[in-house]
Amino acid sequence: MIRRYVGIDVGGTKIAAGVVDPQGRVLSKAESATLPDRPFADVVRDMADCARRAMEMAECSEAQIGAIGIGIPGIAENGTGAVIFCTNLGWHNVPLRKELSQYINKPIYIDNDATVAGYAESVAGVSRGATSSVFLTLGTGVGGGIVINGKPWTGAHGVASELGHLTIVADGIPCTCGKSGCMERYCSATALIRMGRDAARQYPDSAITKMSEGDPEKITGKLVIDCAKEGDAAALGVFKEYARYLAIGINNIISFLDPEIVVLGGGISHAGSFLLEAVRGRIPDFLMFKAMPYCRIELAVLGNQAGLIGAAMVAKSIIEEGEAYASDQDR
Amino acid sequence: MIRRYVGIDVGGTKIAAGVVDPQGRVLSKAESATLPDRPFADVVRDMADCARRAMEMAECSEAQIGAIGIGIPGIAENGTGAVIFCTNLGWHNVPLRKELSQYINKPIYIDNDATVAGYAESVAGVSRGATSSVFLTLGTGVGGGIVINGKPWTGAHGVASELGHLTIVADGIPCTCGKSGCMERYCSATALIRMGRDAARQYPDSAITKMSEGDPEKITGKLVIDCAKEGDAAALGVFKEYARYLAIGINNIISFLDPEIVVLGGGISHAGSFLLEAVRGRIPDFLMFKAMPYCRIELAVLGNQAGLIGAAMVAKSIIEEGEAYASDQDR
Repeated sequence: MIRRYVGIDVGGTKIAAGVVDPQGRVLSKAESATLPDRPFADVVRDMADCARRAMEMAECSEAQIGAIGIGIPGIAENGTGAVIFCTNLGWHNVPLRKELSQYINKPIYIDNDATVAGYAESVAGVSRGATSSVFLTLGTGVGGGIVINGKPWTGAHGVASELGHLTIVADGIPCTCGKSGCMERYCSATALIRMGRDAARQYPDSAITKMSEGDPEKITGKLVIDCAKEGDAAALGVFKEYARYLAIGINNIISFLDPEIVVLGGGISHAGSFLLEAVRGRIPDFLMFKAMPYCRIELAVLGNQAGLIGAAMVAKSIIEEGEAYASDQDR
Repeated sequence: MIRRYVGIDVGGTKIAAGVVDPQGRVLSKAESATLPDRPFADVVRDMADCARRAMEMAECSEAQIGAIGIGIPGIAENGTGAVIFCTNLGWHNVPLRKELSQYINKPIYIDNDATVAGYAESVAGVSRGATSSVFLTLGTGVGGGIVINGKPWTGAHGVASELGHLTIVADGIPCTCGKSGCMERYCSATALIRMGRDAARQYPDSAITKMSEGDPEKITGKLVIDCAKEGDAAALGVFKEYARYLAIGINNIISFLDPEIVVLGGGISHAGSFLLEAVRGRIPDFLMFKAMPYCRIELAVLGNQAGLIGAAMVAKSIIEEGEAYASDQDR
């Protein structure tokens, strides 16, 4: 019997659950609205419901399921199975594993959404086969996922890989986290929008102003990038500045961990080769050792499937580690 | 027969070689001046000579030596045994292993001096037993050593753990490396001296000015710290600012890797508990998750023995890994 794994990706907007095979292929997927304002128990009931539906769609019995993985936009403690902190969902110290176990009696593991998405890319995506990789989600915020020796790295206390909150401009722009000058304030979609709005004010004749009909609220990351692709000088200036900060952030990753590959995901990564070429072109300016080789920089390929694939694969990795340990003890 | 290991620590000023036991205890030590302006081959001959003398002092035969480790202030490639880059010694692409092999026919491994010093602390020093640790040398520059899963981490291309060259102030103070705003420019002894000289100019009545007899050249890191310990307001201001930047740098380490322990070494660490308390007190201001536990922050304990202990222990770790792999293949 080939084992299957259930991955559940819980975001502020929706819950997605899927049955995933050992190679990281999605066999089925069921979704539901998160509606994070309702009680925790109701959200978990719908997580279980999505998982059940996905199992039915894949004609997969509970006996076939090796484990369940959950990706959350926050921090969990796998020792107790509790979610410590999950701002988007309003969860603080909630017993997620215990609550979900009432519906499905399988090993359950919980991890950060960027960590599991990065792991997904290293199992079934662009960083497949890499021993070490770093994943950056460039969205509303900047999330990070680290893979070391082929395994997700969450640190000694579970607070690792918060790469969006590395200080790159001490005493810089205040961050939502309470600190100042975090990478997220310069490399997120939010940052690109802020820079785009500044440029629109400064250059009323720019394409950014025209495309947004003079309404700053209509300026999105995509709009700025589209204007830059069209060659608008103001938008190009903004985009180059954005790419420069991203290159500074990636160079910090190189000088710290020196992974085999850095993977860019999240909304901004939809700019594709336009982003990739701009960033790759800027990296050498900030390298510590100009003559030494360094990581490849690539776009994520799993899109919004990464969360549930990664959650399932993290669960697989943890139970297999346990089994390998047990078999070692027997030997 | 209990195996011994030879550790060689090559700096810009001196060569130190020692015989080290498997627990990281130094059994003997021999030193010699580096005189880096002379030919590479002459420096290597003296490295071999120091190693021989140390072996004689410890009454240790060549047969007892498991391997030789070398710590260099630069970057090496263990595949070829070449030193790629070692500014202080003026070495570029020199065949260090091959050259030293003419004198002693043993497995030879080469690694960065901060990496091996950090590993030494994790084998026989303050971070002993920690699965993950980060070591910072606060000297003329800022060096970094990373231990992950009990092993030194040098990255996929050997350029990891250059923590002194993480950008913490984008477009900040120009660095000797060619970049700007590197952590080294704010957290090294050199930075403390610069800040002390600025303060002496600004506050001519300060103890810094008096102790240095009005000569900026006489202002050292120790002088600034001594004045701060005595309660001089200008020196205290400088020291607090220094500790604040160091706290920002350490928080970047926490948000990236979240190690069990961060170890402070190098000249500035001789300020002892005065430094430790100032830094520990500042960390919470920059934490991403205020309520979560995080790494201990401690002073290095091995002092200038760390280099040769670490070099020897890195060599031990690599040959044992090879033997474990070979025995696995036999099984």
